[in-house]
Order: sequence, then C-alpha cells, then structure tokens
Amino acid sequence: MRLSQIHQPRDIRGLDLTQCQALADEMRETIIHTVACNGGHLSSNLGAVEITLALHRVFDTPQDKIVFDVGHQSYSHKLLTGRAERFGSIRQYGGLSGFPKCEESEHDCFETGHASTAISAALGLARARDLQGETHHVVAVVGDGALTGGMCYEALNDCGNSNTRLIVILNDNQMSIAKNVGALSRHFAQLRASAGWNTTKRKVKYGLLQLPVIGEPLSKAMHSLKESLKTLLFNEGFFTSLGFKYLGPINGHDQRAMETIFRRAKQLDEPVIIHCVTKKGNGYRKAEKKPELFHGTPPFFIESGEVQKRSRKLYGQVAADTLATLAKKDERIVAVTAAMPSGTSASHFKKKFPNRFFDVGIAEEHAVTMCAGLAKGGLRPFFFVYSTFLQRGYDQVLHDVCMQNLPVVFLLDRAGLGNEDGQSHQGLFDIAYLRHIPNMTLLAPADSSELAEMLRASMELGTPCAIRYPKTAVSPNTGYPTVPFVVGRWRTLTPGGDAAILAVGSMVGVALNVSQRLQQEGIEVEVINASTVKPLDAACLNRLAAKTRLVFTLEEHVLEGGFGSAVLEYNAMHNSKLNIHVLGVVGSFIPHGDYRTLLKDVELDEEALLARIRNAVQSLEATNG
Amino acid sequence: MRLSQIHQPRDIRGLDLTQCQALADEMRETIIHTVACNGGHLSSNLGAVEITLALHRVFDTPQDKIVFDVGHQSYSHKLLTGRAERFGSIRQYGGLSGFPKCEESEHDCFETGHASTAISAALGLARARDLQGETHHVVAVVGDGALTGGMCYEALNDCGNSNTRLIVILNDNQMSIAKNVGALSRHFAQLRASAGWNTTKRKVKYGLLQLPVIGEPLSKAMHSLKESLKTLLFNEGFFTSLGFKYLGPINGHDQRAMETIFRRAKQLDEPVIIHCVTKKGNGYRKAEKKPELFHGTPPFFIESGEVQKRSRKLYGQVAADTLATLAKKDERIVAVTAAMPSGTSASHFKKKFPNRFFDVGIAEEHAVTMCAGLAKGGLRPFFFVYSTFLQRGYDQVLHDVCMQNLPVVFLLDRAGLGNEDGQSHQGLFDIAYLRHIPNMTLLAPADSSELAEMLRASMELGTPCAIRYPKTAVSPNTGYPTVPFVVGRWRTLTPGGDAAILAVGSMVGVALNVSQRLQQEGIEVEVINASTVKPLDAACLNRLAAKTRLVFTLEEHVLEGGFGSAVLEYNAMHNSKLNIHVLGVVGSFIPHGDYRTLLKDVELDEEALLARIRNAVQSLEATNG
Repeated sequence: MRLSQIHQPRDIRGLDLTQCQALADEMRETIIHTVACNGGHLSSNLGAVEITLALHRVFDTPQDKIVFDVGHQSYSHKLLTGRAERFGSIRQYGGLSGFPKCEESEHDCFETGHASTAISAALGLARARDLQGETHHVVAVVGDGALTGGMCYEALNDCGNSNTRLIVILNDNQMSIAKNVGALSRHFAQLRASAGWNTTKRKVKYGLLQLPVIGEPLSKAMHSLKESLKTLLFNEGFFTSLGFKYLGPINGHDQRAMETIFRRAKQLDEPVIIHCVTKKGNGYRKAEKKPELFHGTPPFFIESGEVQKRSRKLYGQVAADTLATLAKKDERIVAVTAAMPSGTSASHFKKKFPNRFFDVGIAEEHAVTMCAGLAKGGLRPFFFVYSTFLQRGYDQVLHDVCMQNLPVVFLLDRAGLGNEDGQSHQGLFDIAYLRHIPNMTLLAPADSSELAEMLRASMELGTPCAIRYPKTAVSPNTGYPTVPFVVGRWRTLTPGGDAAILAVGSMVGVALNVSQRLQQEGIEVEVINASTVKPLDAACLNRLAAKTRLVFTLEEHVLEGGFGSAVLEYNAMHNSKLNIHVLGVVGSFIPHGDYRTLLKDVELDEEALLARIRNAVQSLEATNG
Repeated sequence: MRLSQIHQPRDIRGLDLTQCQALADEMRETIIHTVACNGGHLSSNLGAVEITLALHRVFDTPQDKIVFDVGHQSYSHKLLTGRAERFGSIRQYGGLSGFPKCEESEHDCFETGHASTAISAALGLARARDLQGETHHVVAVVGDGALTGGMCYEALNDCGNSNTRLIVILNDNQMSIAKNVGALSRHFAQLRASAGWNTTKRKVKYGLLQLPVIGEPLSKAMHSLKESLKTLLFNEGFFTSLGFKYLGPINGHDQRAMETIFRRAKQLDEPVIIHCVTKKGNGYRKAEKKPELFHGTPPFFIESGEVQKRSRKLYGQVAADTLATLAKKDERIVAVTAAMPSGTSASHFKKKFPNRFFDVGIAEEHAVTMCAGLAKGGLRPFFFVYSTFLQRGYDQVLHDVCMQNLPVVFLLDRAGLGNEDGQSHQGLFDIAYLRHIPNMTLLAPADSSELAEMLRASMELGTPCAIRYPKTAVSPNTGYPTVPFVVGRWRTLTPGGDAAILAVGSMVGVALNVSQRLQQEGIEVEVINASTVKPLDAACLNRLAAKTRLVFTLEEHVLEGGFGSAVLEYNAMHNSKLNIHVLGVVGSFIPHGDYRTLLKDVELDEEALLARIRNAVQSLEATNG
C-alpha cells in the first residue's frame, strides 16, 4: 500500500509488518524530499516514523487524543491523517503548518510549537475525559529534550499524584535540538547502557523482543502480565517516584515491539510512561551523522547534504563574534543559551570560550534566573534566546533580573515576523512584554554594525538590557550612518519637513526606501533610527513636537503596547501635540509563510507604507487647506 | 546571650547548644509577637529557626552566600544579621521587607519573593565564584513546596550535570503553602517513613543521631566518611539521578545534627542536597495545628489565634461563590489553583465541588496549559491566581490558551498595589502583559456584584478572558449602577461636561469621589466605569471624541502598556482628537506598605487626583481663553 492510498489512520491498521516497513520507507523518503525542498525539521521527524505508525495502528484518533510536544515530530502524523497529498506545501504560505494545527485535521487535538507543553495539555484532556465519563485514551509524545523543561516535571508531578490515566511516550532520541544537556540525559544514557543497548552499532538494531523474559509472557492475562512487565520496569526512581508506571526502554524503530507495549499500556488504569529509544535522522545518513544540522534546516541537496543557498549573515553570528571580541578584554563576560547554541549562533562564542558558555537545556526560566545569579556574582551574562522563547522567562526577567536591576543582556534573536515556523514562533511581542518592566533598556539595531555597537553599550550600561533583532543581518555601511550608537539617542538618517518616521530596527531600511520614493513625489519625510526603544529620546521627541506636523512610528511588532504606544504615552504625559500615526502589526496571530509575503500581509511592506504615509500627509494638507 | 546582643552571625558561633536553644526560643517568641502585630508569614518562619541558626554557625556570610527561596523562611536570618532591633517594623511602610532585600543587609545576597528561584540563582552565584577563582560556599534554602515548581527541576538538572559545588538545603516542612500536592510530596512522605520517622508524634523528636550507624563514623576522615555517609544516601533515585549527593533526611529542629551534616557538606566538591524535615509553625501550637491558616496571616491575638479584625469580604470569595452557583447548572465548570486554594479563596469552590477542583502545586506554567487541555476537552476552567503569579504563565497564556482561542478564564486576584508583601507581589503589570495577546478579553469589576456579572459573562464569551480585581471587595449597591454588565460596553455613572474619567476597577470608586468633590468646585466630570479593559468601547470613545474636551484614564496599574495606553492607541489609529491624560503608576517597583500610603505615594489617592484633574481642566480653560 502506497502513502497516496492512506486517507485515514485506519487505512494502515490492516497492514502486516513488512507492509508497514515499506510504508515507513516511503514516508521517510517523502519527508526527506519535502524538507530538502521546503526546509523544515528533519532529524526529529525521521526519528519518529515507526512510533507514529505504531501509535496510529494501536490508538484510534480522533476519539483517542495524541498530543505531540513541540510538534517537531508530527510530520509522519500529518502523512497518515489525510494530509499526504498536501504535504509538499508544508511550511509554505497558505500550505500545511510545520506544527500540529487543529484546523488542518480532526486528528490534531492540541496545537504545539513551544517545548514541554504536551503532558500538561494531555493531563487537561484526560481530566476532561474523566469528568465527562468518556473512556478514550490520551497520549502525549514527548522528546527527551523537551523533558529538560520544568513544565514537564510540573505536569508529571501533578499527573502522578492524581493517578490520572494517561500515556506518555518518551521519544528518547539521544539528543534534543542540540547535544542534550543536563543530568537527565546522562541518566537516560545510563538506562540505555543498563538495558544492554549498544548505541555505537552502525545500524539501530535493538528491540523489545531481544530483551530477556518479555517474549511470551506479554500474551498472558493481565494480572500475570503485570508480573512479567516488572522485568521492564527497571524499578527506576525517576518516573516511578513521580507516580508513573515506567515501561521500557524499547527500540523506537521496532514497530512490533512498540505496538505490543502500546496495547498493554492501553489496558493500564494509571499514568504510564513508555520509554522509546530512537535515532534522530534515521534513514538519511547525512542527518544521522549530523542530526543537529538537520534539526531545523533550510532547503538542501539530498545527495551532498549541503544547503541550497547560503542565507545572509546572521545577526546572531554578529552578536556572538562581537561578544567574543569583547570577552577577550573583559573576563566578566559569559554567554548562556537554552538548548539553542546553533539557532542563536551562540556556538560561535562557545568555540572561543567553552568555559564561559552555559547551555542549560530547554529551560528558559532557569536560564534567566541563573543569569541573575551570575550577574549578582560579578559576571556579565548575555542570554542568547529567541524573542518567542523568552516569553517563558517573563516572570524571571521581571522578578529576578529587573527588580534587582542586574546587568543581564538579553539577545533576542528572531524578533519580528517569524516566517516559515508560523504562529508559535513569531517574535512580535517582545517590546510589549518587556517595555513596562522597570529598569529595562530595550534596543533594536538597524544593521549589523549597530548591533555590535549595542553590545558594547550594553556592557557600559550595567543594568538589564534587551537587544532585539531578526534572523538575517542587514550589512553595515549601506549608506546611512547608524553608528556611533548612544543609548537613548535617536539619529536622523535623512531630513524632511513634511513628516517624520520613527523606525525601529528592521524597519529602518524600509523607511529609508519609502522616504526616497516619497521624495520623488515631492513629499519630504525625515527618517529617524529609533534604535533605543526604551528609554525614548525625549530631546528628539520634543524637537519633533516643536516643528513636525506628522510623526509615524514604525515597528515590526504588534501595535498593542509596542514602541508606538510608548511614543503615544510620552506625548500624552508631556501634553505635547504631536500628530502620531502608529504603524505595526495589528493584533492577531500571524501564520507561516515567507517573510516578504507576511510583511505584505501585515501591510508593512514598502508599497503599503508608501500609500499609508502618502495618504496621511495629503489628508493633513487637505485639512489644513 | 540575648537576641539584642546579636549584631552579626559570628556572635552566635561561640554559643553552646543549650544557649542556642534559648536563643531559638527567643527568636520564636519575637517572630510570633511581631507577626501577631504586623501580620506576615508565620508557619514557615517558625519551622526554619534551627536551620537558620545552624546555617549561620557553620557558614560565614557575607562571604558565603545563602539564597532563601521565596523568602518566607528568612525572618530568623534577618534576626541574626543585625536586624533584630528593626524587626518590629517588618512589612510596614519604610520598615524591613518581609523578603530578603540586598539593600537591608550585606548578608542578603539575592532577592526572592516568587517561588522556586533559589537553586537557579545559587547556581549562577556558584558558577560566577568558580570562574573568578573564589572558594566560598553557596547555599540555597528551598521549601518542599517550592520544589513543585518546574524551575527548581531545571536548575537541579543543570547543576547536577555541570557538577558545580553547591549546597541545597531542602526544608521539607511537610506542607508548602497549602497541603502539599503532587507526587513528589508523597515521595518525601515515603522517605520519611522509610527512615523510621513518626510524624504523628506530638513533639517532633527525631534527629540524625538516632539513626543507626551515623553516630561515630562522622568524625572519621573524609574517605571513610564518604563510606559511612552512604547509609544516609538512601541511594534514592530522584536526586541522585539528577547528579546530586543526597544527605538525609535529618531532623531540621536538631541543631547538632544539622551542624554536623552542614560541616561535612562543606567538604564535598560536588552538588549536595541536604534533606531536613521540619514542622511548620513549630513552637506556636495554633500554627502547628493549622499551619496553612498562619502561612500568611493578618495581625492576630496570640492567645486565641483569632485574627484581630476581619477584613472586608474578599473578591476571591465572591468569585468562588459565584462560580459554585454557576457550576451547579453547568457541569463544564472546573476550578484550578496553583497552591493557593486559601489565598485566592478557591477553596470555597472546592468545598462544594471537590472533584471539579485541581490544585496543581506551585506550578503556574503547567496550570495554564493544563487549563488549555481542560478547555480543549470540553470543560470551562477558571484559574484562581494572583496577578503577580500569572507572570509565570505568560508564555502559556499566549501560546497554549490564546493561540488556540480557548475558553479559559483567569481570575487575577491581588491586582493593583500589593501592600505589605511589597515589590515582588505588586499586581501592577497584568494589563500590560495580557493586553497585547490576540483573542484575550480583559475585565475589571468596580464592585463585587459586577465581578459576579463578569463571571457569568465570561462563560458566554467562550474565549480567553482575564478578570483582574484587588484583594478586598467593594460591596455592591454603593449607589451607582455597575450592572448589568456587558462585555465591551462602558457605563456612565455620573454625567459631566468639562471632562471625563475612564476609570478601571478599583479606581471607579475613587473617581466618583473625586468627581463629587470637583462638582462642588463647579467642575463637572463624567465618570465612566471602563469595566472592559480589552476590547475598548469604541462607541463610548467616539461619543467622547465628539463632545468632550478632556479625557482622563485612571488605573491602578503601570502606565506603560496599560489601559490608558490602549486608549491612546485607539485615538491614534482612528485619528480622533481626544485630549487624553493617562493616570496610573509611573514605572518603578513599588515597595511594601499599607495600601492607603502606597496609593498616596503613586499619586492615585483622592487628593492627588483631585489636584491633577482640577489643574488639567483649568489649564485647558486658560488655553482656550
């Protein structure tokens, strides 16, 4: 049976194991070819093919609920739930999402994107089931990386205590996004060792049935099954002390083994954890060798494994290189990441200062407060983190860093529209969630040389500071002077008397182009690089209030509580009479797509801005006669 | 030696154990009498007296660093570090804080207030120490309740993995704020049982030296010590699998036992966890019996244990009672709390619907996503939580609840100025951190009957909703009609042509008083109950734009990103010409004190508002001639 014949999970239930293997091969091929074309999450998805097949043969969605943590393992699930035909559109504008999405399929029961949420969500679903007298199964599929996030532990603790019937599939793929950090992963490694796994074997070739004792007894009645399962249980403190029945570890590529265990787990009336060991990138040798490289990948050539086109230099890399330069002279500088050494480019710093680099796992909360401790201890920590992931550490930024006014610098990568990853990864809220926190300074560079200047300035600041920037850098020396940078001072890049644009970060270049085009129409628009989002440049605002009729704020960020909102507050508090138009993203979650299309959709592209500014200037002129 | 003779921790190092006991008795007495006068955290502080004495006799602050998690156990530490004389001022305006504060003493090395941060902070301090070649000790004192927070686990995981030298004192006081929930506490109970503790004994009377084998061997040399310590280690999976050396459990009221263990722990070059078992409220029988009642208590009579004056009815109680009434007719309604059944009054709901009530421990992240799961499963969860603690769940509110537009209702207690608890507990940020999240509705009742209406309305809404209210309720029927409440519709309470006040929640009553007094001066100010913070009432704003010269927004919340900011955004986006003055708290962290004094300090009291509004009206009149 070919993938094209699978429209529902039940279509695979009649297959024998050989047919399943053929299907798995086709699924792998489809995933590899699609990700090679579109980019996407490859390694983790290749690791979860057999687990997903086994899940859909044993459980009965949509009645049964399967929650995929993060969603980096949901491609096979999409292929088996009626989306094979559209799979080529994944992560493309208007196409399938790279993450579970309820509107795509009734088989997606809960949306994910950020790590470590699945057990909490599944526990909620299970409790709702119990209260409503329903009997279906609830399964959370969680990678070992996500398990370094504290939320998982909160959920396991609550679940174990309440004894709610729930199945957690731990997909232990031996590395999370980066090389797995933390004591827990070491602990799993020991478990694997103790079970006699040999992970150095070239081909993953271990399975449940190779374990002693387990072959026949599984077919026996329940009460004796429990006895025989004990040989599987390892009587291991970690999960069992949290109140879970622990089953495993089993080979996550041995479908028969998994289906057997899954069927048994369905019969247990308590929380169960099933520990599956898989190989990331399984089936594509390049990804098996360098799974981190193929965790989230741009389009690549399948033969060579090389990415198809080099993207522009990354802002993160500029930050890491600059920081390394500063760190040579200042021993206080240290770098922290939460499982994103590669995504944030923090690895560039690590290479030069391995002892001054800390990867704490997918644990943003801890990362922020640990930074506060480092700072309190006399160091200068820089936390490399995506804008969207610092959301996890909001309370810690406020309570641990800013309340004590500590010199921690947050390097907010992927600020702005988040392109192919979509809703859960948009960096559109950081100004709004950081701006109101006392003691915080907020910066946004217009180009890479300004970013470097900002890192230097943040060192001098000695108080909490966040620098937001998108993924790819605008090169320096693009014809307008963004440096020298001074905190709190905005800089006029082009003069103009009809109106002024206060542009933030990524919008500075766009504003310059718009201004140039408007000039050709005879409209003179001053462009100001509002590189400090907080505090505002009061002198500049006062100057504008004295002379400029029309001011536009422009930011790649939601309008609510954003930079424009700050300018409005200033205006109101100082009773100044600026006529301010706020331009930004108007409040809704933005789906996935390519950056240019998304920018157009939110009306922040050149054409849209040109029209909006032209209209405002002309209508003001009309009013004033 | 009397407490008044203790100026530095070193002053207690020469005392023998009998003298220590006498000092402990005096400390307890001081704590009981002070808390009886000022209110404060009693039970947990009474439980930590001997631990703190032992810590300060074995460790040498300020060189050594002791981080107290939450800070509910820091009173003894304050008494021993030069603050005994000022102790009577604790939690009072201008007096000592109820939490560790670096500006109070060099012995306070890291400020806390929210739970579960200490191990992260301590790990940062320890890493800073190591990188700078220093050798002091870093100790984190953590209650078992705080250990239900996922951050702790993230920190333990990171610490165990990095093998950083660090001592964690687990103060296992057998209940956190409420009866401890979660599998972990059950696990500790088993540990206690396995060690032969008998917690049912009237007097806590267990100690290390009563354990077999441990008496003499402790005095032996290090290498044999490690051998003998193994008898203490229980070879217990939980902490050891995280990479910690586990010592205990020991009697946290047996000072000699603790000092012995602490001294040994100092010699270990690895992360150590010391498990101390204490009794909350130890030394004050009323608190021993009902430790939850005396966790955070208002002033009380020592003899009877009765609180000195009943405070006004709590908003939380109104919410819980209303919800219980609604729940009788609607089986979908469930309530969730994160270890605050009493503080949030959610216990009132629990009494009536124990099966529809979930206390998940100090685990706000999990709580929010679990609510999302409950909602996705067809239920209607209401999360009872303090405004300041929902900060922990910001990402989950955005990513798990609002992105999926799920009907979860957040009941934000203690919104506004947080009185005696101070900086870490102010509820001044919730509008700013929630307002920009798409799909969120934000409400704030002016009185208790409006709160009840809002709960009903939130059920009809069927989308994410947060209702913010302060601790004590304004009774209904105070002469102005706040109901019937309709989401998104503001209501004029008193008319007036000179200006309008858009007042939010707690500020409505103040605005009415101000309006009444201004009327006597001939200034007519319309008071509008802006009970829906988001979405704004566009019709009302448009009406105002057409006729009113001056509009004041008034909120007990920071100005940045607050309600006033939203009104400014509306004004800018719709190009309306309202002259808006935003009144709120101007950005800094607000210390502890009584509500009236704090309100005056932030210039939101009647007198200040009267002056500000009068001035604005008069200066506008002057301008307009």
